[in-house]
Formats: sequence, structure tokens, C-alpha cells
Amino acid sequence: MTELDARERILDASRAEIAASGVRGLRIQRVAKRAGVSLGLIYYHFEDRAGLLRETLAAVDRAVQERIPEPDPRVPPGELVAAMLEAEFGDEPGTRADSVVWNEIRAIAVFEDEVRTALSDATQDWQSRLTAPLSALGVPDAEIGGTATLLTGLVEGLSSRWLSGQLDTASVQRLMRTGTAAILAGATGGRALVSPGTAPAAGAS
Amino acid sequence: MTELDARERILDASRAEIAASGVRGLRIQRVAKRAGVSLGLIYYHFEDRAGLLRETLAAVDRAVQERIPEPDPRVPPGELVAAMLEAEFGDEPGTRADSVVWNEIRAIAVFEDEVRTALSDATQDWQSRLTAPLSALGVPDAEIGGTATLLTGLVEGLSSRWLSGQLDTASVQRLMRTGTAAILAGATGGRALVSPGTAPAAGAS
Repeated sequence: MTELDARERILDASRAEIAASGVRGLRIQRVAKRAGVSLGLIYYHFEDRAGLLRETLAAVDRAVQERIPEPDPRVPPGELVAAMLEAEFGDEPGTRADSVVWNEIRAIAVFEDEVRTALSDATQDWQSRLTAPLSALGVPDAEIGGTATLLTGLVEGLSSRWLSGQLDTASVQRLMRTGTAAILAGATGGRALVSPGTAPAAGAS
Repeated sequence: MTELDARERILDASRAEIAASGVRGLRIQRVAKRAGVSLGLIYYHFEDRAGLLRETLAAVDRAVQERIPEPDPRVPPGELVAAMLEAEFGDEPGTRADSVVWNEIRAIAVFEDEVRTALSDATQDWQSRLTAPLSALGVPDAEIGGTATLLTGLVEGLSSRWLSGQLDTASVQRLMRTGTAAILAGATGGRALVSPGTAPAAGAS
């Protein structure tokens, strides 16, 4: 097992442990056992619990990014934004597990300063991926940040309804599309930019 | 101390303990100590930890409702909805503490079935308070539920940005108003129903 392998295995194990029992139930020993490494190796790579949480969040952020389909230049930017945000919900186990991890780290960031900075960085990274399509849609530069916050904030709000079983996957995807259309229309002076919901909603057929 | 007093004191203590250290750090013994009652009295009134969490959530729901100003019949329904949702954010200690409690119970509901049902009931109760103004705005009956979910989902998403220090109170109130305006416009075929944000944003002056 190379160093890189071990690091990735630890992060995979941390994601799985948090998805199963929450960040406050996280025991580094169980992460070590699941990853098949020593406790010492975890501290060697991540220093402490906060360091492991920070890197776990970054790993989730990368995984979410990888699930987003490559932008097709023929797809209008409004549809691209809608598809990116809809891809945050889905019935594949990885999608749901990563949403739980993000949800948990978001909750604990209210109490733990060290996690807060990591969450803020990961959120900025996520929102920055919306800058180019929002700009292409004609959202004024001064409003791109606020618009990205509304869109990603809505993802986060709806995700906890979905994760706690108040909304099923098809419903949350449909609502996310409706909300995206409304927020984009609001930011561009009322132009309709997103189709109303028969789009590629994975698993909603 | 009457029975009613004791019950209210226990719920106040539970809210304060969760606001200070989270639902997973909640120790019934500390709630008892803070409320000045015996452990037995808590179990007598609330049966178990899940029962206490359920009733704490209901108490927060009532407190939020009481903070909302009485609807003035001269205020247009769009402004009423915007003011109701904006009142979820504010610098008064009670507002922030209750938002933390709701945020925490929302996070734990992903893992605990008993809490899940209580959360779902409290959320339905919250959303039902939007039915009359949304109907007055001309939102079609079939879309009132979805529109209320988008609005309250956005409150929840933005609240965790606010509680984790990513947005200050004035910014979150301004964004909530922008998002409310966009979602209401989307649900009513593009009519502008909410003023753009110089409204009674408590603490934003």
C-alpha cells in the first residue's frame, strides 16, 4: 500500500463512518480499522480530528465535482446550472452518503471554529464553480456571489429535508429545478432560463 | 413551582443546553440542573430523550411564531411572507439560539427516526402558516406546498451559513428577501410582489 493509497483509504473510511453514524459519533479508531491502517498513520497524515474532518470535507467536495457531467458547450448555461445543482441529489449510495457528510460537517461547524474555516473554504470552492455559467447568463458581477449563495443555500436546505425523509429524490430534484429557475430569473430580470422539469433528472423516471 | 412552570422551565433549559453545546452533547442531568428540577420530573413529563427533543422542537416552533409580528391587514401578502421569513434571522439572543436548536435537531433527524417524525410535524406546522398569504398572492393550490417548501428550505439553508459565520445578519436578511421575491415571482408568473430590501430588516440599519 503506497502512501497515497493509505491517505485515500483513510478519507474513504472517514466518509463512510460519518455517513453511517454522524460526525459526533466519529471515532478515529473505527476509521483506522475500516481503512486497515494504524491509528498513528491517521495522525501522521491528518494531525488531528479537525484535520481529518477538513480533508474529508475536501474529498466530498471533489467527489461531488466528479459526479457533475462535463459541461457540453451546446447546453445553455441556465440548463447547466440546473443540472449541476440537481446532481447534488440522487439515489446512488455515494451521492446520499456525501450529502450526509456535508450536512453533518455543516452542523458541527456552528460549534467548532476549526471546522468552520474548512467549511467556508469548501463552500467558496463550490460556489466558484457557478461563477462562469452565472456570468454567461448575464448575472451582473456584483450579484454573482449572492446568487450563488442562494442557489447553494437552497441545495443545503432541501438536502436536509431529503436526508430526513421529508422529500423523496424525485420531489427534491423537481423542487430544486423550480427554485433554480426562479432564482436565475430573479437575478437576470425575469428571463426564463431553465426548462420546467422534464430534464435529465436521474432516477426520477 | 406549579407543574406548568416546571414543564416550561425544563423546555427552556433544554433549548439553552442545545443552543450552547448541540443536541449530541445534550445531557439530561444538565437540563435538570439548569431547570432546577429532579431528573425524575423530566422523565415524568417527557418520557425519554426523544420525547424531550420533540417537545423542545415544538417549543422553538411556538417561540418563532410569537416573534412574528401580528399580520397587519394593510400589509400586502408578499411583504408579509418576506417579513415572516426575515424574522427567522436576527441579533436577539433568542432568535439565534432557537435557530441553532432547529439546526441541530434537523441534523440529528437524519439518524434518529423518533426525532424525524417530530421534525416533520414541526416543519408542516411552520409551512402551514404560509398557506393563507401564498393563497392570497394567487399561488395555485397545487403549488402552495412546493412553494412553502422552497421558502422554508431556503431559510434553513441560509441559517446554517449564518450560524457558522459565513453570512452576517444583515447579509442573510437581504439574501432571504431577494430569494423570497424570486420564489414568489416564480410561483405567480413573474409578478413582483416583494420590495427589494430596504424593508424592516431588524438590526440591519
